[in-house]
Amino acid sequence: MATWRLDIAYDGGPFSGWAAQPGLRTVQGELEDGLEQVCGERPRLTVAGRTDAGVHAWGQVASCEIEREPELDLRRSLNAVTPREVSVRSATRAPDTFDARRGARSRTYCYRVLASSIASPFEVGRALWWPYGFDRAAAERCAGLVPGTHDFTAFTPTQTEHVRFERDVVRCEWRDGHGLGEDPVLELWIEADAFMRNMVRILVGTMLEIAAGRREEDGFAELLEGMPRERAGETAPPHGLYLAAVAY
Amino acid sequence: MATWRLDIAYDGGPFSGWAAQPGLRTVQGELEDGLEQVCGERPRLTVAGRTDAGVHAWGQVASCEIEREPELDLRRSLNAVTPREVSVRSATRAPDTFDARRGARSRTYCYRVLASSIASPFEVGRALWWPYGFDRAAAERCAGLVPGTHDFTAFTPTQTEHVRFERDVVRCEWRDGHGLGEDPVLELWIEADAFMRNMVRILVGTMLEIAAGRREEDGFAELLEGMPRERAGETAPPHGLYLAAVAY
Repeated sequence: MATWRLDIAYDGGPFSGWAAQPGLRTVQGELEDGLEQVCGERPRLTVAGRTDAGVHAWGQVASCEIEREPELDLRRSLNAVTPREVSVRSATRAPDTFDARRGARSRTYCYRVLASSIASPFEVGRALWWPYGFDRAAAERCAGLVPGTHDFTAFTPTQTEHVRFERDVVRCEWRDGHGLGEDPVLELWIEADAFMRNMVRILVGTMLEIAAGRREEDGFAELLEGMPRERAGETAPPHGLYLAAVAY
Repeated sequence: MATWRLDIAYDGGPFSGWAAQPGLRTVQGELEDGLEQVCGERPRLTVAGRTDAGVHAWGQVASCEIEREPELDLRRSLNAVTPREVSVRSATRAPDTFDARRGARSRTYCYRVLASSIASPFEVGRALWWPYGFDRAAAERCAGLVPGTHDFTAFTPTQTEHVRFERDVVRCEWRDGHGLGEDPVLELWIEADAFMRNMVRILVGTMLEIAAGRREEDGFAELLEGMPRERAGETAPPHGLYLAAVAY
């Protein structure tokens, strides 16, 4: 029995998220199908960040245990049988103790926004088109309040009791991104120990409302201290979000 | 009667090229359909660069004459009725003498190459995946020979007599491009007064063969002086090519 680490990129567009679900096309399902074809057994993948339907990744990490040693290069074999929307960037032997989920110290997400009155055919499904105005200074002031330990109750639909709503954010900033041609893409980069469900998308949705002048900037700070969900903004759509990196 | 200038971006993937053809989906066809819906008349578009099937553009320019003054903002109205793979970036009144094709002093194309052993789901249809090795210094030496006036007979399938095969290239260079995540995208930027059919794609195909060590670098210079087509390399696929800019 050997432990393997897979580093994975995927276009989330055609998938019902990471997690395998009967009858739905999922990234985990495609990869486990591929592993079964290549290895002759069906290992169960453990993942660093369970992405929702439509969310992308270029730095996802998964681990699994495989009984038989693969005869050929596992990365190449897997890429040959998985769809082109999924790319295994590396497949390497890991220490037996490696667990892609439990071992992760932090996750980094990137949310891409095309802040322009003009849509781009090259950002369809790749960035949120936001033609409603973007006051970058206001967005940056909001982002600057996010690092630290906060109660993100306002930024998740999760309502279960006995759940810890605090998360430790180590980085949150808007940066210039790169679109094809001269498309003005902005990116929110955020790193935390872990994320609540929809947390990045609701943070982005709320900041966008403020940056467009549709919501008071003053209220943003208190949203980070445990306000109810309905006080924060809309959930930004999944197609702008990328799981960018996982640190161990 | 007023002359209009349209600046246009499009994802060439779903189209059988720019030029209208009966029964096929083309960029010109979509835009003329859109103009007919918006203006109540069907002007004929003149274009700076007739792109082939699958070729993209982010800086295409077209002109047309419209009899009736559009009541609403023409750019917005057109974008509302054209598919999302086409984006009108601006629609402005131009001098009566403006002709998008005859007035163009130069065209600039960009060819994007993902030079990596690992494919990227985000570059499918956006860059040529080239996992066969890329000796950048060799590619740059080839590109450095292209500026100037040369006979591009080797770089086009066009065989008609009475055609001028000389073109004046004012710029040809490889640059670092930007992929999502850390995808190593390289871009060939080339500007000339005009281009022969498939010229950029055959230049790129030939340079890639040299950069991969599949073809002698020595022969490249003489290809630029009127060799027959079969002496140059393969035609690189259309999905890496973008019409980037037109100068007037």
